[in-house]
Amino acid sequence: MAKIPVLEIFGPTIQGEGMVIGQKTMFVRTSGCDYSCAWCDSAFTWDGSQKPTLLTPKAIIEELDRLGLSRTGHVTLSGGNPLLHKALGELVTLLKKRDISLAVETQATFWQDWLLEIDDITLSPKPPSSGMTTDFDKLDSFIDKLGSANYSLKIVIFDEADYAFAKQLYVRYPNVPFYIQPGNAETEQSDERAASAYLLERYEWLIERATNCDTMIHARVLPQLHTLVWGNRQGV
Amino acid sequence: MAKIPVLEIFGPTIQGEGMVIGQKTMFVRTSGCDYSCAWCDSAFTWDGSQKPTLLTPKAIIEELDRLGLSRTGHVTLSGGNPLLHKALGELVTLLKKRDISLAVETQATFWQDWLLEIDDITLSPKPPSSGMTTDFDKLDSFIDKLGSANYSLKIVIFDEADYAFAKQLYVRYPNVPFYIQPGNAETEQSDERAASAYLLERYEWLIERATNCDTMIHARVLPQLHTLVWGNRQGV
Repeated sequence: MAKIPVLEIFGPTIQGEGMVIGQKTMFVRTSGCDYSCAWCDSAFTWDGSQKPTLLTPKAIIEELDRLGLSRTGHVTLSGGNPLLHKALGELVTLLKKRDISLAVETQATFWQDWLLEIDDITLSPKPPSSGMTTDFDKLDSFIDKLGSANYSLKIVIFDEADYAFAKQLYVRYPNVPFYIQPGNAETEQSDERAASAYLLERYEWLIERATNCDTMIHARVLPQLHTLVWGNRQGV
Repeated sequence: MAKIPVLEIFGPTIQGEGMVIGQKTMFVRTSGCDYSCAWCDSAFTWDGSQKPTLLTPKAIIEELDRLGLSRTGHVTLSGGNPLLHKALGELVTLLKKRDISLAVETQATFWQDWLLEIDDITLSPKPPSSGMTTDFDKLDSFIDKLGSANYSLKIVIFDEADYAFAKQLYVRYPNVPFYIQPGNAETEQSDERAASAYLLERYEWLIERATNCDTMIHARVLPQLHTLVWGNRQGV
């Protein structure tokens, strides 16, 4: 079996954001990313500050089992960009055989065929504040390939330029379930209550912005629940 | 047109809980309830402290339009128990003609045929801490009638007895999307930050409880977002 560079395996916990918000899940976080977003809240997956462990799919499942897979039934593949890893396909197949539901989040820049076996796919193109540029033609064909898969768009929003980017996507993909989420500019804040107060203020700002918007009629506006509860801690 | 006893019409805002959490929506809150839950957070709908206004469906829509229905596209019918009001059927028909999506929350004790036109139906049987008793035979036939409608169960949980009640429902209706939500015992707390700190603690407790549970494998654990953001204020 090919090995996968893994940075952390944790849970059971809940999915803190997006289309399956609140879902009991476990996380497998791979290392490596083709992006380097200015405000990345998981920069340790690509900035060299933490070293991944190379694990076979079987070893990953052993660790999930040890932590509590049997009482969860749902695994989230996260990164970094998990779509960099073709070898995740073996893990996906093994987990689906055990009737585990799977979620993935990706910026939708690299395709892997195993994506079509995923139950909940979150596409998160990055807004201008990230410093990254979205290739819309590439995104179009990525979304075409998804066909009838269960997917959504989720855009992180820090400011008006990001909001305009989200509107552009909303209009371009009118039939895709659409989530917006306030950005977290204080990923270094270590006081949990200060972190949650700040995030609730940013969430209130985004609600106000979205409810006064006549473009994104059917958007869903959600915070990052795990950050509200646990602050900026890793591994929850 | 028959008139409907309305306590408040507000929005645009977001849906704070359950299956369409985060959705941009507007609220029509009817008065009257066949229950009187010990911890009801909208007791003003049934305790006589606030008087409803009798409004025709047309008048309700005029008010929704004035507030911003065109930039929302989604209305939540809430109470009290909105299923007490047969006349809501006319409002539902008029809103559906305008391509507005609709959500309802009810304890599932009274049936109305207009329910089958609703896009997102939340059934919220009340746990022991409410002081109410669920008639499971009645709930069975209510759920039978829903057929292929889009519905979910949502249970508020204050303590271990409530948790046991939720497990019972989870096992009884294994194919129904299932949400659990921490109860708010401090509905009189007027300080917003104190309210959100308390609710985040209760939410963390429920996450801990649920992630260690091998019965409710696929449950989704969600807080009340509107209370986190705005505290116990009415009209948001």
